Amino acid sequence: MKKIFFLLLAMVIITQSLYSQTNEKFNHYKSIADTIIKTALRERKGYELLRELCEIGPRLSGSENSLKAIYWAKEKMIEAGFDSVWLQPVMVPHWERGEKEFCGVYNNSKLIKQLNLLALGGSIATNPEGLTAAVIEIKSFKELKLKANDVKGKIVFFSRPIDQGLVNTFAGYGSTVDQRLYGAIEAAKFGAVGVVIRSLTTKYDNVPHTGVMLYVDSLPKIPAAAIGYLDSDFLSEQLKQNPDLLLRLKLNCKTFNDAQSYNVVGEIKGTDYPNEIIVVGGHFDSWDVGCGAHDDGAGCIQSFEVLDLFKRLSLKPKRTVRCVFFTNEENGSRGGIEYGKFAAASSEKHIAAIEADRGAYTPVGFNVDSDSATINKIAEWLPVLERAGIEWVRKGGSGVDVSKIKNAKALLGFVPDDQRYMDIHHSANDTFEEVHPREFELGSAAMAVMVYLLSEEGL
Amino acid sequence: MKKIFFLLLAMVIITQSLYSQTNEKFNHYKSIADTIIKTALRERKGYELLRELCEIGPRLSGSENSLKAIYWAKEKMIEAGFDSVWLQPVMVPHWERGEKEFCGVYNNSKLIKQLNLLALGGSIATNPEGLTAAVIEIKSFKELKLKANDVKGKIVFFSRPIDQGLVNTFAGYGSTVDQRLYGAIEAAKFGAVGVVIRSLTTKYDNVPHTGVMLYVDSLPKIPAAAIGYLDSDFLSEQLKQNPDLLLRLKLNCKTFNDAQSYNVVGEIKGTDYPNEIIVVGGHFDSWDVGCGAHDDGAGCIQSFEVLDLFKRLSLKPKRTVRCVFFTNEENGSRGGIEYGKFAAASSEKHIAAIEADRGAYTPVGFNVDSDSATINKIAEWLPVLERAGIEWVRKGGSGVDVSKIKNAKALLGFVPDDQRYMDIHHSANDTFEEVHPREFELGSAAMAVMVYLLSEEGL
Repeated sequence: MKKIFFLLLAMVIITQSLYSQTNEKFNHYKSIADTIIKTALRERKGYELLRELCEIGPRLSGSENSLKAIYWAKEKMIEAGFDSVWLQPVMVPHWERGEKEFCGVYNNSKLIKQLNLLALGGSIATNPEGLTAAVIEIKSFKELKLKANDVKGKIVFFSRPIDQGLVNTFAGYGSTVDQRLYGAIEAAKFGAVGVVIRSLTTKYDNVPHTGVMLYVDSLPKIPAAAIGYLDSDFLSEQLKQNPDLLLRLKLNCKTFNDAQSYNVVGEIKGTDYPNEIIVVGGHFDSWDVGCGAHDDGAGCIQSFEVLDLFKRLSLKPKRTVRCVFFTNEENGSRGGIEYGKFAAASSEKHIAAIEADRGAYTPVGFNVDSDSATINKIAEWLPVLERAGIEWVRKGGSGVDVSKIKNAKALLGFVPDDQRYMDIHHSANDTFEEVHPREFELGSAAMAVMVYLLSEEGL
Repeated sequence: MKKIFFLLLAMVIITQSLYSQTNEKFNHYKSIADTIIKTALRERKGYELLRELCEIGPRLSGSENSLKAIYWAKEKMIEAGFDSVWLQPVMVPHWERGEKEFCGVYNNSKLIKQLNLLALGGSIATNPEGLTAAVIEIKSFKELKLKANDVKGKIVFFSRPIDQGLVNTFAGYGSTVDQRLYGAIEAAKFGAVGVVIRSLTTKYDNVPHTGVMLYVDSLPKIPAAAIGYLDSDFLSEQLKQNPDLLLRLKLNCKTFNDAQSYNVVGEIKGTDYPNEIIVVGGHFDSWDVGCGAHDDGAGCIQSFEVLDLFKRLSLKPKRTVRCVFFTNEENGSRGGIEYGKFAAASSEKHIAAIEADRGAYTPVGFNVDSDSATINKIAEWLPVLERAGIEWVRKGGSGVDVSKIKNAKALLGFVPDDQRYMDIHHSANDTFEEVHPREFELGSAAMAVMVYLLSEEGL
């Protein structure tokens, strides 16, 4: 009886001691988290760096400007005192928009209205004199098949808008982006000579949104472009009144030979487990309109700021923390693929990789792509993460680039609020002014806290 | 043995049946919630109504414009087909800014710079020729006491900024607002002749923010105003170089006799428990700069839209749903107090009252001021509420106006994201353009779902 009593007593003491150790550890983490958050919010260093980046202009991979930004980024990492900084060479597609496009609506060869239009990324040009054809409005590939006989020789106008009724704007985007990605392929199957789409946007304005489009070699390549939302309404209305009106389309884009580009990589070596790697990154390329402030200059600079906060606060990570600015996410993912190959061949152990590519809005959560035990382990850190506004950790997709790191234990996607993102995505609306300093810095802080915990705890 | 077996079997069946009933009920609620959300986000009726309201201009209670808005609101409720619509008379303070203020920094009677300045709500005017005095910069009431001997005959410049390091901007505001509220009282104690404060803002711009300030009869009343953030920096810098510089201040404000105003009330009668009341509201008055779009035109129109969504969707609430546009929250809370008296004297049973007065940003949660059992009951609805982006239900404060309904079972505060709110609060920045349609409508929807659940389930 006495033995049992002492055994029980010992168990109680051990349990309490473990509990109080965990408690103490978490209190320590919370205090570090608060310091990280306060520093980010007060100093706004990343935000000011994003301003500088945006002044360089858009960064479509393969462009001169993109290289300028890449060298700038490398210098910034060196200035920040990261332990190693390097450029990882990647060959990328090189497409240029050329001279500004033209799109006119004609009735009996009289110009009714010029429409705001932007070639889709990867589109071929029209003939120099432009492409003039009748237009057929189509809402879906299903409807396209039903109207297969009416498409030949025409420009197909895919006009299905993002469903504003969906709370998650990425879901809305996801259910309309087929028009942009595959519209030219599907329309070409039935003899269309061109494709225009209603811009994929949640904003009822007239700023056209671009984005990548695809061809297949087995079908004729036809020019493809996006029309501003309001002008899409206009075109739709006009077509109801006069189905015979003509659209004249002049695109001047050109695809060149692949160009030299680079992922920009910087790291702080881990003190205890230098061979265990935590990647945090975004894609450094942007479309060639606006300046890719949210998409994804912000995600890159926030990732930079994670490491920079460690430096500013003299936090020495136990595991190696590496930020990667991936090149060419928008039209090829070559940067992500290249890094993935490097990770696969490396003797390093990638324990986690976090991607920030959903805009720099108020942090909400982290998606984790891993096994349940790992997700649960990360979810246990919520009491610390919530200091930076993180409401949840749940199973979910990470991001286009880090998902190429197939051998990482956990792939994470940083999830901010998304209500405003599709207003500006891939358009001239994506400017520095659309980024809110506190939202941006809270994002940097949330990621820094996550990276700090990963570095301390491992996976 | 057989008996026990059948008893256990019966229990299992009853439990399963209850579980499946609850499940079915919640699935039904989720489907209603989804319909509410989709309708709000797709139709944007409330958002367009807010545009109309903002075109009327600012609505400081006691002003002509405020009455114009009140009559407009009554008409809108009647047009929407609410069962009853009425104006509840309230006498309110009547303060006017008068002609635009002037504030100049002088060195040896030479004007160095004119500063962006706005009288605080309730301030007295200066003499017609203006008040000219030396300035002393003070960070806190504690410092004021320490420098008591240096204050006499001077203008006190309270310059403590909102701590950007705090994640919650209301916490930042709360820890600096003493300067605005009590600055004139505290400074007058030591013989100061005027008070200027650094604008309470999270935005590093030069737009001054006003807000209510207080006097006590036992002390001299001295003029009080807010200076734009950047001009506050300027003044601070200048004072370091030349502590003898003079500030000339000219305020032209005036307090008139109390004026007639009204709460605007509209309701949909409950089908089953018409005597049980669920209030949802905001305050209809605003400051006299900007147009009170977020503060709190949005909260009112979102509350209106809760009822309007019920009408549009032919949802008949079991309990009476009442929207209240409270008057005079900004400088007296007379509307809230009047409604509270009415509720106390009424034979109706107020089961819940929700206040929306934290801007129309992306919904995050609901604060509930009630007993634990009630809070837990509401928290059980999270699987339904989260369809509209609600992440949590927790114990917390409701709002200035509904907190006057002392006999309500539960007082709720609708909590949206707050990162941008203090940028615009009480300033010319608070315009319709700052309101995002999706964020606004998601807020309407979140409140409508909460009101729907309260109406179905009771408390």
